[in-house]
Amino acid sequence: MKLLPTIFSWLKRRVPAFDWLAHYQRKQLPGDALAGVIVATLLIPQAMAYALLAGLPPQVGLYASLLPLAVYALLGSSRFLSVGPSALLSLLIVTQVAALAEPGSPRYLAFAMATALIVGFLQIAMGAARLGVLTNFLSQPVLSGFTSAAACHIALSQVKHLLGVPLPRTDHLHELLAELARAVPQTRWPTVAISTASVLLLLAFQYLLPRVLARWKTFPAALAQSLSKSGPIVAVIVGTAIVAAFHLGARHGVSIIGEIPSGLPRFALPALAASELLPLIPLAFTISFIGFLENISVAKSLAAKRRQKVDSDQEFIALGAANLAAGVTGGYPVSGSFARSMVNFTAGAKTGLASLITVVVVGMAALFLMPLFHHLPQAVLAAIIIIAVIGLMDFGMPRRLWRYNKADAAALILTFVTVLALGVEKGILIGVCATILLYLWRTSRPHMAVVGRVPKTEHFRNVQRHEVQTLPHVLLLRIDESLYFANAKYIEDFVLCAAAERPQLRHLVLICNAINFIDASALETLTDLRTRMQDAGILLYLTEVKGPVMDRLARTEFLEQLGHERVFLTTQAAYEQLASASPSPQGVNNAEP
Amino acid sequence: MKLLPTIFSWLKRRVPAFDWLAHYQRKQLPGDALAGVIVATLLIPQAMAYALLAGLPPQVGLYASLLPLAVYALLGSSRFLSVGPSALLSLLIVTQVAALAEPGSPRYLAFAMATALIVGFLQIAMGAARLGVLTNFLSQPVLSGFTSAAACHIALSQVKHLLGVPLPRTDHLHELLAELARAVPQTRWPTVAISTASVLLLLAFQYLLPRVLARWKTFPAALAQSLSKSGPIVAVIVGTAIVAAFHLGARHGVSIIGEIPSGLPRFALPALAASELLPLIPLAFTISFIGFLENISVAKSLAAKRRQKVDSDQEFIALGAANLAAGVTGGYPVSGSFARSMVNFTAGAKTGLASLITVVVVGMAALFLMPLFHHLPQAVLAAIIIIAVIGLMDFGMPRRLWRYNKADAAALILTFVTVLALGVEKGILIGVCATILLYLWRTSRPHMAVVGRVPKTEHFRNVQRHEVQTLPHVLLLRIDESLYFANAKYIEDFVLCAAAERPQLRHLVLICNAINFIDASALETLTDLRTRMQDAGILLYLTEVKGPVMDRLARTEFLEQLGHERVFLTTQAAYEQLASASPSPQGVNNAEP
Repeated sequence: MKLLPTIFSWLKRRVPAFDWLAHYQRKQLPGDALAGVIVATLLIPQAMAYALLAGLPPQVGLYASLLPLAVYALLGSSRFLSVGPSALLSLLIVTQVAALAEPGSPRYLAFAMATALIVGFLQIAMGAARLGVLTNFLSQPVLSGFTSAAACHIALSQVKHLLGVPLPRTDHLHELLAELARAVPQTRWPTVAISTASVLLLLAFQYLLPRVLARWKTFPAALAQSLSKSGPIVAVIVGTAIVAAFHLGARHGVSIIGEIPSGLPRFALPALAASELLPLIPLAFTISFIGFLENISVAKSLAAKRRQKVDSDQEFIALGAANLAAGVTGGYPVSGSFARSMVNFTAGAKTGLASLITVVVVGMAALFLMPLFHHLPQAVLAAIIIIAVIGLMDFGMPRRLWRYNKADAAALILTFVTVLALGVEKGILIGVCATILLYLWRTSRPHMAVVGRVPKTEHFRNVQRHEVQTLPHVLLLRIDESLYFANAKYIEDFVLCAAAERPQLRHLVLICNAINFIDASALETLTDLRTRMQDAGILLYLTEVKGPVMDRLARTEFLEQLGHERVFLTTQAAYEQLASASPSPQGVNNAEP
Repeated sequence: MKLLPTIFSWLKRRVPAFDWLAHYQRKQLPGDALAGVIVATLLIPQAMAYALLAGLPPQVGLYASLLPLAVYALLGSSRFLSVGPSALLSLLIVTQVAALAEPGSPRYLAFAMATALIVGFLQIAMGAARLGVLTNFLSQPVLSGFTSAAACHIALSQVKHLLGVPLPRTDHLHELLAELARAVPQTRWPTVAISTASVLLLLAFQYLLPRVLARWKTFPAALAQSLSKSGPIVAVIVGTAIVAAFHLGARHGVSIIGEIPSGLPRFALPALAASELLPLIPLAFTISFIGFLENISVAKSLAAKRRQKVDSDQEFIALGAANLAAGVTGGYPVSGSFARSMVNFTAGAKTGLASLITVVVVGMAALFLMPLFHHLPQAVLAAIIIIAVIGLMDFGMPRRLWRYNKADAAALILTFVTVLALGVEKGILIGVCATILLYLWRTSRPHMAVVGRVPKTEHFRNVQRHEVQTLPHVLLLRIDESLYFANAKYIEDFVLCAAAERPQLRHLVLICNAINFIDASALETLTDLRTRMQDAGILLYLTEVKGPVMDRLARTEFLEQLGHERVFLTTQAAYEQLASASPSPQGVNNAEP
């Protein structure tokens, strides 16, 4: 009966919660409890706001913060990560699903739930297939350009709520801007007053409060950080109270959330035919990747602080399970939130129990507090969203990139512009292709240096940068790149040119210490090069070939044709031998064929 | 009046013929004349055969060998290259243009001429824009797979002529094979006799004759090589004579070429509306690249033998001009021929005059010898094509690649199969994408080695391969690849894992001597890594950073945050300092935040 231990060890690996539950210590409880409650106060307004951004009723955001968060707490390999609704995923939902159903309708909700289900299956499958590595092909510039452009989209979509004007939904940026310009004269000033006050309050909590509290030396730093994140719940409470007290909703036309049904979500599958799910597949792929990326980067940051490991395949599976949970409990796609996870971490969370406490608090709110949110103005939620996504826009990045590497900056700008102009999916695809082509372009023109010996040493340096010794019949060439198809011809041309310019040349030495790989195309080019050099009376030598490269070369005819005696361990050894060799070595076919 | 010298120097650069014409020496004439005549005897049968392969009348092959060859002789930067019809381009023409018009019809010829015109414009534009470098992205495995598959296509298309059976034209391999199987019982034995005799004669000339002549010590080697290439003209003469003498065409149903109009081509533009040219654009792009690739590889091989340079942009322009010439004189797309260029070179050609003499001989043949070819059997031409393209199939390559590098072998097989199954253009595209992805995959999982010091030396080697000294609080890690977006996370994971496994670790040293570039994504990862390590009480160091990499890093905040004192020139220096440092250095935040 070895089955039971096998199952148990599998469960232990796949359900990290067993580990922290089995070793739970009483002293961890206060930190977990405090963090759980604080995260809940941030999560409740954010969840409702993001649900509205996604075109869904506010309670859907809460539902997506209950079972999914609990499932992740049990399965996730990070102990601090807080999953739930995210601004980016909400944007993806509204731009794609609005083409299939009317936002706010039950059918729209069914599509959102179905997307979460498909995302869940995809993420679990990708985790099982160890495809987490695929996300590596999204480069930093593409990611940054995409995030900034998405943040712009999100912020612009909220302007109507800040101004209190009705606007038709549109995917096209220029239409949105035109509609906004047309609607500005209808601005409702009571709404603008609430928006402005909310924005100022949020900014004050986020940027002013920490400074003020920092002066108060004895104030605990962790509590100060948590307090500075409590702006949203304060804005919600104050905004709702004012609107309710002065009847701004009914009298001054301030848009309010209205009735939110109390209670917990029920288990249900989305009421859609299987064939209706097909158009969701591309969206689900995008969300799977973007959601995972958000998740894994937060998880890694937090785990590193405690020298813990994050298993990216387990993360994929845990996030997938959370999405499945969202899909069967009336939620929509979720991912790890950077802001809430940081709050969780700094408020003192030690284990996943913190998230379970958050779930209890949110659940209580869904059961008993919904009537209190009746008068919550949309403008407050819009302000919360805008302040949240403004943090996602990184305008320093393009400047830094421009200084560091123009090609990367170009990829960022291209992605930003195409995501804004053509939408998220096309924009990302174009950005990824552009970075790959730029990378190939870069490695296709490698740095090469003709080197000479620094007098009285064994060092060899670039002849253009240093005073070095050279020999007229010997050319020492260092290639600073692996050899592969895209740069093989470039290197060949360089060598052939160098040979054509030096009539006295008899020995060509390639210094290979920066060559990590030689692919088949480059090997073919090297073979041709050796023959052509030989035809022209020039002998080819290699020095400082790395172990793995040499192992591969040993399997080829190239090395036999070249001769093992033409491969030197060090450039110094080659230099000494060739310096003493006659300028026109024997056994070389120097005549015309 | 500095205009004239400017024009003159531009002409001298763009028309390399000025150079050899101005310095022409009488002693060069015999070599040029002999080579010119010998190439013509090879060119005439090949040109007619390839034209038939392309679905065009035989004289079109000759027309494509007159003005285009002369134009290339004047503009090309190679003095030995012989341009004209090619088997590969003929295959591309017949597979694509046959969808637009009936092969053999005047409209079909007009499309072929128009293709040559567009190819000419494209190649000149690409040469002017210096896009020759784009061809580098066709890797050797893709090229080899494509060439072998195309050779298979061509050879199979000629089997019907060898057997003397009529077959409908088809693009699909399985249909062709099915039709062939059905047609075999109708085989015409007189035709098969001619085919077999031709194949044997061609093989004898190509492989037997050189050996026989080599035994005859006093026989000039160059003449022997040229004679061994004269199989096609001998086969044509003998085959035609036998068919004419025994009336095999009329009496035994042997397919013959029939009437070929005598005379030189007239200047004319293809009679097509501009809108009809649109479907030719993708084909023209393919032909531009493939033709250029054939051309440049031959030109480089020959130029290297005499230590001459080939200017790849000038080559593009010269080949483009030759194609324009083909398009206005009733020809079809041309490129450099490896076989004919080698004959030209070995027969003693010194300058482009050899090609001009070839043009005169081919022109005389077109004017006066066409009636003699009336009884030329198609089977002889089919045999010439098959023997020519069998040389293109390289079955040794996949074996060699498999031994050297399985990924490259897989790319070759993929390209071969997709070109055979899906056609040339899709096949090449899939092959190119596959090689790029394989390359990214390879560089995304770079070789990394934890190293230690070889006792009593300054050398640092892999701890798994050598007996070396290590320190428990210091990790020396060598990364054998440039850092970029596709491998940054992989390296980060490796480092984080290594740190998590070593509780005593206080100093992490990255040895950068194989890092030729750090892109923005990798820099971001390094920045994160430094922070995370710092949070975990581990200090990051760099050693042996290359000049160009350091120049770029100097512009970043990363280096400031790291501190210049954490960058060492040599690994030895870092090792010595850290060996003497306390295991838990001061000033490091080792506590939990």
